[in-house]
Amino acid sequence: MTTKYILLVEDNPDDVLLTRRALTKGHIINELRVMEDGAKALDYLFGKGEFKGRDTADSPGLILLDLKLPKVGGFEVLEAIKTDPFLKRVPVVILTSSRQEEDVVRGYDMGANSYIRKPVDFEVFVETVAQMGMYWLMMNEAPTE
Amino acid sequence: MTTKYILLVEDNPDDVLLTRRALTKGHIINELRVMEDGAKALDYLFGKGEFKGRDTADSPGLILLDLKLPKVGGFEVLEAIKTDPFLKRVPVVILTSSRQEEDVVRGYDMGANSYIRKPVDFEVFVETVAQMGMYWLMMNEAPTE
Repeated sequence: MTTKYILLVEDNPDDVLLTRRALTKGHIINELRVMEDGAKALDYLFGKGEFKGRDTADSPGLILLDLKLPKVGGFEVLEAIKTDPFLKRVPVVILTSSRQEEDVVRGYDMGANSYIRKPVDFEVFVETVAQMGMYWLMMNEAPTE
Repeated sequence: MTTKYILLVEDNPDDVLLTRRALTKGHIINELRVMEDGAKALDYLFGKGEFKGRDTADSPGLILLDLKLPKVGGFEVLEAIKTDPFLKRVPVVILTSSRQEEDVVRGYDMGANSYIRKPVDFEVFVETVAQMGMYWLMMNEAPTE
C-alpha cells in the first residue's frame, strides 16, 4: 500500500468535503491535498507560480481530477500529466459529474487510468469514492518512485 | 454497468479457475473469454489467424493481462492494444505474479490502466480479483463503443 498523498483537483467545496468523508470511510489514511482550479494544479505538479521551488519528485500516489475546473480545464491538466515522462506513471482517476460519452472517450484517449461519474445521491457518492480509494490505494500497485 | 465480456489473457489453468470463481463471488456476470497465450490474444483482438473474420468491433469491456505468457509476452500484447486507436480505450489491468518494480513502471509507461499483483494466498486472490472486477465493471465508466 502506498502512503503517498492524494491530489484532489476539485473546485466544489461540497465535493471536497464528501471526498474527505468517503476516504475516511474507506480507511484511507493518505493525506489529501486539494487544488481548487486547473492552473493551481499545474503550478503544484510542475513546481511553478506559488509552488516555485517545491520538490516535484514528491509526487502524488493518486490524482483525482474533476473536468469542469476554473482557469484551466481538467483535460488540459490531464494532458500535461500524461505527456510528462515521470508524472504519467501516477494513476489519474477522472471524477466528474459529466455524463457525456465524448468526455469518457476523450479521457481514455488522453491516458486517464479510470473514469468515475460522481453519483448524484450523497450516500452513493461517499460509498463510491470510498471503494475507489480502496482500489487505487490498497490494491493497485503504483510505481514507488 | 457494462455487459461486455472480459478478456482474460492467462496461461495458468489454476489462475483461470480462480479468476472465474472470484468474478462469480463479486457478482460479475459478464462472460469471460480466455486466451492462453499472447499470440492467440493478438489474433483474437485483431481478427487474425484462427480468428480471421471475427467482428473486431465486438471489443472487450475489460482486459486482464498476465505478463509471463507463452509465444508473445504480455508487454507486447499491451503495446499492440495501447497503440491501436480504438482498442486503447479498453481498460487493461495487468494481473501478474511479478513483483518487480521495473515491470510496474514499464506497465504504466506503456499505458496499462492498473497493475495488480496476484496474491499468493488462494482466498486473498479470490477476494482481490472480486474487488477488482467490481471496480472496473460496476463503478468505472468505459466507452460504450
